[in-house]
Amino acid sequence: SKTKEIVVLPGDGIGPEVTKEAVNILQTVCERHGYKLKTRTFPIGGASIDRYGRPLTDETLKACKESPAILLGAVGGVKWNDQPKDKRPEAALLGLRKELDLFANLRPIKTYDSLIHASPLKEEIITDVDIMIVRELTGGIYFGRPRYIEKTETGERAVDTKAYTTEEIDRIAHIAFETATLRDRRVTSVDKANVLDSSRLWRQTVKESAKQWPEVSLDHMLVDNGAMQLVRNPGQFDVIVTGNMFGDILSDEASMITGSLGMLPSASLGEEYAMYEPIHGSAPDIAGQHIANPLATIASVAMMCRHSLDMPDAAREIELAIKTTLEDGFRTADIYSDPANEYEVSTSEMGSAVVKHL
Amino acid sequence: SKTKEIVVLPGDGIGPEVTKEAVNILQTVCERHGYKLKTRTFPIGGASIDRYGRPLTDETLKACKESPAILLGAVGGVKWNDQPKDKRPEAALLGLRKELDLFANLRPIKTYDSLIHASPLKEEIITDVDIMIVRELTGGIYFGRPRYIEKTETGERAVDTKAYTTEEIDRIAHIAFETATLRDRRVTSVDKANVLDSSRLWRQTVKESAKQWPEVSLDHMLVDNGAMQLVRNPGQFDVIVTGNMFGDILSDEASMITGSLGMLPSASLGEEYAMYEPIHGSAPDIAGQHIANPLATIASVAMMCRHSLDMPDAAREIELAIKTTLEDGFRTADIYSDPANEYEVSTSEMGSAVVKHL
Ligand SMILES: CC(C)[C@H](C(=O)O)[C@@H](O)C(=O)O
Ligand SMILES: CC(C)[C@H](C(=O)O)[C@@H](O)C(=O)O
Repeated sequence: SKTKEIVVLPGDGIGPEVTKEAVNILQTVCERHGYKLKTRTFPIGGASIDRYGRPLTDETLKACKESPAILLGAVGGVKWNDQPKDKRPEAALLGLRKELDLFANLRPIKTYDSLIHASPLKEEIITDVDIMIVRELTGGIYFGRPRYIEKTETGERAVDTKAYTTEEIDRIAHIAFETATLRDRRVTSVDKANVLDSSRLWRQTVKESAKQWPEVSLDHMLVDNGAMQLVRNPGQFDVIVTGNMFGDILSDEASMITGSLGMLPSASLGEEYAMYEPIHGSAPDIAGQHIANPLATIASVAMMCRHSLDMPDAAREIELAIKTTLEDGFRTADIYSDPANEYEVSTSEMGSAVVKHL
Repeated sequence: SKTKEIVVLPGDGIGPEVTKEAVNILQTVCERHGYKLKTRTFPIGGASIDRYGRPLTDETLKACKESPAILLGAVGGVKWNDQPKDKRPEAALLGLRKELDLFANLRPIKTYDSLIHASPLKEEIITDVDIMIVRELTGGIYFGRPRYIEKTETGERAVDTKAYTTEEIDRIAHIAFETATLRDRRVTSVDKANVLDSSRLWRQTVKESAKQWPEVSLDHMLVDNGAMQLVRNPGQFDVIVTGNMFGDILSDEASMITGSLGMLPSASLGEEYAMYEPIHGSAPDIAGQHIANPLATIASVAMMCRHSLDMPDAAREIELAIKTTLEDGFRTADIYSDPANEYEVSTSEMGSAVVKHL
């Protein structure tokens, strides 16, 4: 078909500002490649709570299930922090992941040469860092049952359950190995097998899966060591595969390597559906000021072109455009530092600059 | 009494080498302050497995329970990795923590001016970093029940349980607030309250405890953000309080700020007992080569003087001696980098250098 259809969930805070630019870019590459882009937009998170009393409505979920690809901005904000847990903006995110079975979260961590100076890490440590974090996204302690808070004689007691099955581990390992074949063919599996039963099953299952990928090398790292190695020498990693909670922590830690959270995209993939979003949050403090960095969302659209829209050339074009836009000195406030060689631009100016560089 | 008694558990790998130097230092300060030092030494971890078939014997545990303070080297090594979980060296560590109810793990993260260049982080990011991580050590997912691996129709399923009670959270919060009163009076509590029930109870309980410490300021941070902020701007933290698993990950990550794991001590405190150990592992790859850095263990002995042996002056003397030894250019291999201004020394030479600087 000559039409590409996606669902857009702008969400809260800077979400609407950054998705607007990303959709523009997608529009442009679709036209270039002879496609018509059709978007349907729905509120999610806080925006949905304000309008419908719920962070994720049935209508939104239904639309998502009719679409091969979803672009999400960001959800959350102080305003909704005191809601009960199933009425908080994050519940929409967790709900979508589970309902659409988006079990594989890909978070590429790549440094841009022109931003290297912005990293808290020394230049020689981070030059050429190119890591793909593959995080399991629908299992582990995020979704395990039972989970509750109960009264005791003297106070309360809270319980969460971390559970993983062979199948869940095997399918995420599969994604990691497959991803590695297109890269440097090295997978590091991160767990806490010296303490957790779930990690012992994790390690054993990943080892077993590895046999199907003899061309990929596998090693295992304990999560505490992994957190250390990501700071000590991130260049050692190619693909990292890990569970939901460890992946949440390590990917945010790793994002700092690049110097700005505002640059990093993500893809959440399942068998049938896929969702793309920047890894940054809704940044309510700067919402509406037109200074948010749209590049992470624009890079997420590139991932969408690659993984969902069957437009791998468009993906590369967008990624190259981001690179050259940065090289030409365009900077939103979060990455602006050198008045002599850089121009500080607004969210939409950055979006336009990328369009021009396409 | 004019006698100070401790139990020494050298353990595996470099454990015996580094504890030897630390005991020497302790001996020296005890004499200076008019005390006789009495030590009793027992195998633990792999060393105990090799000798008695178990990582922690009843005799060792009994001796620990008769002593106000324990000095531990390190446990573990590839040799014992294939043992069933209750026969692995780490089981000794977990067993001691639980049996002695060592619920509060203090991990100070402090940069030494003379080692600042060794950090992967930029100098301006880490100058004056001085963080105390207070990690809960006997609860959470490390010890929660049930935990098991079961057969399913199609494979296996593994479960771990993360549980916390009001009392467990309250007592560790208490330690954190108390610690903060002797420092910059700021506590950051790290949790994952947007996802976990145990974190919601954690946050609510810490908030409640905070009321008893009006002079200390408290804020809350999600663990993914915490992992990021430790790299982005570690100088923002004073005391961090968090659960067992998050504390394990964040403290190893934070250790990299200082540039060497070989420098960092820890104290594990309970109502009745206390154990001190370097936060590095047993490093089997360099064991027996006389190149291990004993400073983390020596700094652990300083913490022991402060928290268990009622010798706060000795603690300060040891800490100062470490600092001046480094300033005078003494370096074990792990921290040696500048032939023009530094001398590379062996483990025992480093120990002697600290004794001389006392
Ligand atoms: C908002 C939150 C529930 C979410 C998570 O923990 O997965 C976020 O941190 C992320 O990584 O996408
Ligand atoms: C060896 C292991 C069980 C231990 C832990 O996870 O607590 C170690 O990493 C530590 O931090 O002391």
